[in-house]
Amino acid sequence: MKALTFQGEGDVKIREVPKPSVAASNDALIKVTLGAVCGSDLHILHGHTPMNPGTILGHEFVGVVEEVGPEVKRFKPGDRVVSSFFTSCGHCTLCRKGWFNQCVEKGTFGHGEYFGGLGGGQADYVVVPNADHTMEGIPDGIRDDQAIFVGDILSTGFFGAERAEIKPGDVVAIVGAGPVGLMATMCAQLFGPAKVFVIDMVDARLEIAQELGGIPINAKEVHPVGAIESATGGIGADSSIECVGLISAIDTAIHCVRGGGTISVVGVPSAVQADFPYLRMWLKSLTFRAGWCNVQAYMRPLLELIAAGRLRPEKIISHRMKLEQAEEAYRMFDAREATKIVLTP
Amino acid sequence: MKALTFQGEGDVKIREVPKPSVAASNDALIKVTLGAVCGSDLHILHGHTPMNPGTILGHEFVGVVEEVGPEVKRFKPGDRVVSSFFTSCGHCTLCRKGWFNQCVEKGTFGHGEYFGGLGGGQADYVVVPNADHTMEGIPDGIRDDQAIFVGDILSTGFFGAERAEIKPGDVVAIVGAGPVGLMATMCAQLFGPAKVFVIDMVDARLEIAQELGGIPINAKEVHPVGAIESATGGIGADSSIECVGLISAIDTAIHCVRGGGTISVVGVPSAVQADFPYLRMWLKSLTFRAGWCNVQAYMRPLLELIAAGRLRPEKIISHRMKLEQAEEAYRMFDAREATKIVLTP
Amino acid sequence: MKALTFQGEGDVKIREVPKPSVAASNDALIKVTLGAVCGSDLHILHGHTPMNPGTILGHEFVGVVEEVGPEVKRFKPGDRVVSSFFTSCGHCTLCRKGWFNQCVEKGTFGHGEYFGGLGGGQADYVVVPNADHTMEGIPDGIRDDQAIFVGDILSTGFFGAERAEIKPGDVVAIVGAGPVGLMATMCAQLFGPAKVFVIDMVDARLEIAQELGGIPINAKEVHPVGAIESATGGIGADSSIECVGLISAIDTAIHCVRGGGTISVVGVPSAVQADFPYLRMWLKSLTFRAGWCNVQAYMRPLLELIAAGRLRPEKIISHRMKLEQAEEAYRMFDAREATKIVLTP
Amino acid sequence: MKALTFQGEGDVKIREVPKPSVAASNDALIKVTLGAVCGSDLHILHGHTPMNPGTILGHEFVGVVEEVGPEVKRFKPGDRVVSSFFTSCGHCTLCRKGWFNQCVEKGTFGHGEYFGGLGGGQADYVVVPNADHTMEGIPDGIRDDQAIFVGDILSTGFFGAERAEIKPGDVVAIVGAGPVGLMATMCAQLFGPAKVFVIDMVDARLEIAQELGGIPINAKEVHPVGAIESATGGIGADSSIECVGLISAIDTAIHCVRGGGTISVVGVPSAVQADFPYLRMWLKSLTFRAGWCNVQAYMRPLLELIAAGRLRPEKIISHRMKLEQAEEAYRMFDAREATKIVLTP
Repeated sequence: MKALTFQGEGDVKIREVPKPSVAASNDALIKVTLGAVCGSDLHILHGHTPMNPGTILGHEFVGVVEEVGPEVKRFKPGDRVVSSFFTSCGHCTLCRKGWFNQCVEKGTFGHGEYFGGLGGGQADYVVVPNADHTMEGIPDGIRDDQAIFVGDILSTGFFGAERAEIKPGDVVAIVGAGPVGLMATMCAQLFGPAKVFVIDMVDARLEIAQELGGIPINAKEVHPVGAIESATGGIGADSSIECVGLISAIDTAIHCVRGGGTISVVGVPSAVQADFPYLRMWLKSLTFRAGWCNVQAYMRPLLELIAAGRLRPEKIISHRMKLEQAEEAYRMFDAREATKIVLTP
Repeated sequence: MKALTFQGEGDVKIREVPKPSVAASNDALIKVTLGAVCGSDLHILHGHTPMNPGTILGHEFVGVVEEVGPEVKRFKPGDRVVSSFFTSCGHCTLCRKGWFNQCVEKGTFGHGEYFGGLGGGQADYVVVPNADHTMEGIPDGIRDDQAIFVGDILSTGFFGAERAEIKPGDVVAIVGAGPVGLMATMCAQLFGPAKVFVIDMVDARLEIAQELGGIPINAKEVHPVGAIESATGGIGADSSIECVGLISAIDTAIHCVRGGGTISVVGVPSAVQADFPYLRMWLKSLTFRAGWCNVQAYMRPLLELIAAGRLRPEKIISHRMKLEQAEEAYRMFDAREATKIVLTP
Repeated sequence: MKALTFQGEGDVKIREVPKPSVAASNDALIKVTLGAVCGSDLHILHGHTPMNPGTILGHEFVGVVEEVGPEVKRFKPGDRVVSSFFTSCGHCTLCRKGWFNQCVEKGTFGHGEYFGGLGGGQADYVVVPNADHTMEGIPDGIRDDQAIFVGDILSTGFFGAERAEIKPGDVVAIVGAGPVGLMATMCAQLFGPAKVFVIDMVDARLEIAQELGGIPINAKEVHPVGAIESATGGIGADSSIECVGLISAIDTAIHCVRGGGTISVVGVPSAVQADFPYLRMWLKSLTFRAGWCNVQAYMRPLLELIAAGRLRPEKIISHRMKLEQAEEAYRMFDAREATKIVLTP
Repeated sequence: MKALTFQGEGDVKIREVPKPSVAASNDALIKVTLGAVCGSDLHILHGHTPMNPGTILGHEFVGVVEEVGPEVKRFKPGDRVVSSFFTSCGHCTLCRKGWFNQCVEKGTFGHGEYFGGLGGGQADYVVVPNADHTMEGIPDGIRDDQAIFVGDILSTGFFGAERAEIKPGDVVAIVGAGPVGLMATMCAQLFGPAKVFVIDMVDARLEIAQELGGIPINAKEVHPVGAIESATGGIGADSSIECVGLISAIDTAIHCVRGGGTISVVGVPSAVQADFPYLRMWLKSLTFRAGWCNVQAYMRPLLELIAAGRLRPEKIISHRMKLEQAEEAYRMFDAREATKIVLTP
C-alpha cells in the first residue's frame, strides 16, 4: 500500500509499504478514506519529536472498518469510523478516573517507537489497537471531512473550552487563531459566553475567527490585554484559552483574565520550564490549567453536535489534496500557505 | 398618575391614582418606560390569586430612576433600570445561600397585600424596595423592549434550562411553546445541546420555536414521547424543561427523558398535589426539579447576552400598546390573540 | 455444590446443585467466601419479585477468582474480588454516559430469568459475566466482611448521599435507619455536613446511627419535620436521603427540606404511583431524585475509604452464620431479629 | 485604649491610642475579646509589607458589638461577632461574582494605608467597615478561641481544600504543617478523602497533623514525592494543597500529583515570578490554582461545623497571652517557639 513515511529531519516521502493486518484480538484494520496534516506533524518534520526513519505518518484519519479482531464488540466490517489520535486501554487506574490521555498503555498514531510504535493514517490502511475504546462510529449524515476533526483538533478545542469553566454571559479570550484556536472559538460558544475575543497577528485567520462568532483582536495593532480590559470596563476576561504554546502567548492568556478567573492552555508549551507569575496568580486567585486533549471523552458528543449542524469544523479546511501529494502538502503547511490540508488516499 | 388596577374577578381598570414616593431608605422611585402583561396577570384577572381591589397591577417593567432613598448605593436618578418581579433582602439565611426567591422578606410587585403589598409596574411610576438588590442597571445599547424580559420570563426560561443540567451534545425536550417555553428554547441553547425539541399544539407557536433553533413537535399530530424516542434511537431526551404547569404536561416531561436524566419544571403546577410515577423515577434514576425563578441571580449575565446579540427575547413580542389600552390588552392576551404584549405609559 | 434456592413464595431451601462454569469469554467463576442477605431477598421470599423456582439466591457476595474467560483482562485466578449486584456491558449508550444501572444488557444476580437469569451468590460458586466491568479487586488489608458492602448497600448509601448535593456545613436528614439508612449515615459524612439527623422508630437502630455520627430522631416520640425545623431555626434541612421507600417516608423527606433543597430517594417506592406535592416542589424550588445504585461507579473509591479506615460498614453486621443456616437466616431477617446477616459457605 | 502598634522594621509596641469610633453609616465598633498573631504579622514585623509607623496591628479578632452605624442591619450592640481579615463592599462587579477578595474597595485590617488604612484588632477596640458584609455572628456554644479562626486561617485552609477538587476516596497531599497547613489538614477531610498526607520537616508539627487525621511525611527523612508515589502504587496524589509559599514547596506540590490532578496553593509565594514546569503541566493535564482566601464566602458554614464539633481549630493554639504581652508574643512566634498565640485585651 501507499503511505507517507518519515525519512529524517525535513524529509518525508510517499513509499510503497506492506499493508498492515489485525494482530491483537482487539485490533481493527481500517481502510483510510481521509487523513489530515496537523501542526504536530510539523514538529516531527523538523526533528523535534524522537522518531525512527520509516515510520508511517499521520494521526488524524477516518475510514471504513475492513477487519476486526475477535474481541472487538462495537464495530464490524463496513462501519465508518473516526479514531482518536491516541489509544487507551480503558482499564488502568487513570483511564478509570476518566483520564484516557494518562493511560499507562497509550500509543500515538504516526509518532514512532517512542510513542508506542503505531503506524499512521496518512496511508491506505492503518491498524487501530483497543478499537472499542479508541474509535467512534460516524453517524449517518456526517461527512468524512467533518468527522475527522473529532479525533484531534476539534476535541482539543473543546477540551480547552470546557476546562476554561465558561458560564453563560461570560467574556472569553482565545489566544491564537490557528486550527486549534479556531476550533476553540467554535467550542467556547457551546458554553454560552456573551463575548469571545480572539487574538492573533494574521488578519486572514482573524477573519475566519470572526465568521465563527469571535471578536478579532490583531495583536500587531493593539495590545491585546489592554484591548480586553477596555472592552470589559477594566475588569478583564472571565477566562482565556491558549492555543499557541509560546510562553509569551501563555503570558497574554494569564494577564487578560480577571481576578478569580481561569486560564486553560492547550498549546504545546515551547519551553520545558520558564518564568511564571506566581504572585499574580495568588493575588488574583487564578486557576491555570494545561493539557493535551482527553479525546476519547469527547468524540461522541462532538459528533452529535456536527450531525445537528451546530459545529462546522470543516470550515477551516483550506486545501484538499491526494495522498500522493502529501510531500507537497507538508511543504505548504510548513510554509503557512494553508490553514488545514486533508488528504484522500 | 395613571395605573391599571384590579377591581375584582374579571375586572381591571385604568384609574388615576396618587403617585407613589420613596418611603424606606433603600427604596427607589422608578418612572416606568415599558411594562408587559404576563400569564400570571391572567391568574389574577380570573381570581385565582388572592387580591385586594384597587391593587396596581404589573410585575414586568423597566424605567428610569427618579429618586432614591439614602441607603441606595448602586443607582442614582437618571439610571435606566430593570426590576426583578419580586424583592429580596440579600441578608437572610436563604438569600445568603443564593436562594433569593426564598427570602423571608420577599414581596411580589402587583400581587396585592398577600404578596407584600407592592404596587405594580403597569403604571406611570412604581416604587422598588431593596433597590440595590432587586434592580439591575441596563447597559447602553439594550432597548427597553429587550431588557424588560430579564426581570421575569427570560430569567425563568434560563432558570429552567440551567436546572435541566444540559451538557454539550445533549438532547433536550421543551414542553410548551408559550412565552416562557420560547425563552427556555433560547436559553437551552446557551448550554450547547445538539438538539432542542419543542412540544406544543399550536403551529404558530411552534413556528417561532423553530426560528429560535428548536425542532417542533406538534402534540396534536404525533405522540411527543414516541416522537422523541424514535428520534433518539429509543433512548429518550437527556433532559426536559416543562413550561406549562398542567400535570399532563409534566407527565410528558417525565416520560420523554432517558434513564439518569433530569426534568426541570418551571410551569406553575395546576394542582396542589397529584399522581406521580414514583417507581419510574426510581427505576430510571431520574431527577425532578421544580421552581419559580431565582431572578436576581440571572439578570446580569442575561443582560450581557442580550447586549452581545446572543439572546433576542424581543422576538416574542406580538403587540405594542399604550398603557391606556391595558384593559384591551388583557382581553386580547386572555383570548390568546397575542403572544406577548408590552405597554408604554 | 451447595446453594440456597427459591422454591416458591415463602419457601427457600439449601440444595445440592451443579457447579456453574465459565461459558462466555468475559465470564469469571468465583468461589464465594462470603454472602449476605439483603432486604431485596425478602421481597423475593414474599413473592413480590417475579421468580422462577430453582433460582439460586443472593446478590451480595465476595470471593476468590477460580477461572476466567479469555477476554477477562483485569482478573486472574486467585484474585480476591467483590461483585456489583448487577452486571453491565460498559459499551452501550447509557453505560457510556456513566449510567451503568441503565445498561441495556444488565442482569441482576439471584433474581431469576426476568432479571437476566443469573445465578446468585448464596452458594459455593457463582459466575460473573462481563467480569472486567462488574467486579472490583479487593485491596490487601480489607476483610471480606467489609468489602462485601461495596457491591450493594454501601454503594447505595453513597449514591443517595452524593445525589443529595451535600455541601460542607450543611444539615442533612436521613429517613430510615435500616441497613441502607445506616450506610447513608456513614456516607453523608464524607461530604462534610455539620449535622446529620437520622429518623426512625426503632431505638436500637437509632443507637447505631448515633454511634455512626448521626443525631437520632425517634418518629414515635416527636414529629420529625417539626424536630428538624426547630433544630434549624425554622429553616429545615438542606437535603434529605430517603432509605425506606414508603410513600409516607418519602413525604417526610420532602417536607423536612428547606427552600432550594434536595431530596434523594434510594428506598424502593412502595407504590408505582401516588400523590406528590407538586405545588410545594415549585414554591420551594426543590429537587427530587430517586434511583437504585449505579454501583460500578462507586466500588473503587469506597474500597479505598474502607482500606483507610474511614468507612466501617461491617459495624452493622448483627449475625454471622453458615450457608447451611441460610433458611434460618431468612426467617430471622424477615422477623427483624437481625440487622444484617452474613453467610460463610 | 491599649493597642499594639507598628513602629518600624522589627519594632512593635503596645501604646495608648485614641479609641476609634463609628464614622460611616455601615461601620460597627467592636470591643475586642480575643486577637491572634498571624504569619502575615511577621511579614509586617520584618518590613516586607509597606507600612506606616503607628499603625495598629492585628487582622484576626473576635469581639462584641458596641455600636453600629444607621445602615447596619444584621448586627446590634451586644452581638458576639467574628470579622473577616479584610472588608468587601458586596456590590462591585467581582463581589457580585462571589470574589469578595477581589473587591475594588477592599481593605485589610492592621496593614496600614496601602491596604486601606484600617486599624487592627490587637487592641481594645476596632472599627469594622461594611459590617453587614464583613462580619458574621457567632452562634451560641462557640467560644472566642474557636470562632477567631474563621476570619482568616481556617477559611484559608478550607479555601485551599475546596479548590483542590477533592472527591470521596481521593489521596491528598498537604505541603506544610504550620497553622494554615494544619487547618487545611482538618478541612480536606470535609471532602471525604481516603488519605491525607502531610509534609513538613518539624516533627512537633507533624504530630499535630497526625492527631488531626493526617499521615505524616517528614521531608528531612524521606523524599516526599517518592514517598507519596510509593504509597499510591506509583500514581501520585489526586491533589495537593500548598501552605508554605516557598517556590520549592510549590514544586513539591506540583510533582506529587497524578496526571489530571489539581494543585491548590494558599501559601504566599516567596517570589514574584520563578521557574514553572510548563511542559509537565501540559503533559500531565494538571490544574494549578493559587489564591488568598475569599473569607466572606466561608465564615457561615465553618461556624456551623465548629458548633457541631466537626472542626476544632482551637487545637493548634499553643500559647494564650495578654494583649500587654504582645511584643513578647511576636518575638516568640518569630522565633518559632509557638504554633499559634492568642491575645486577650
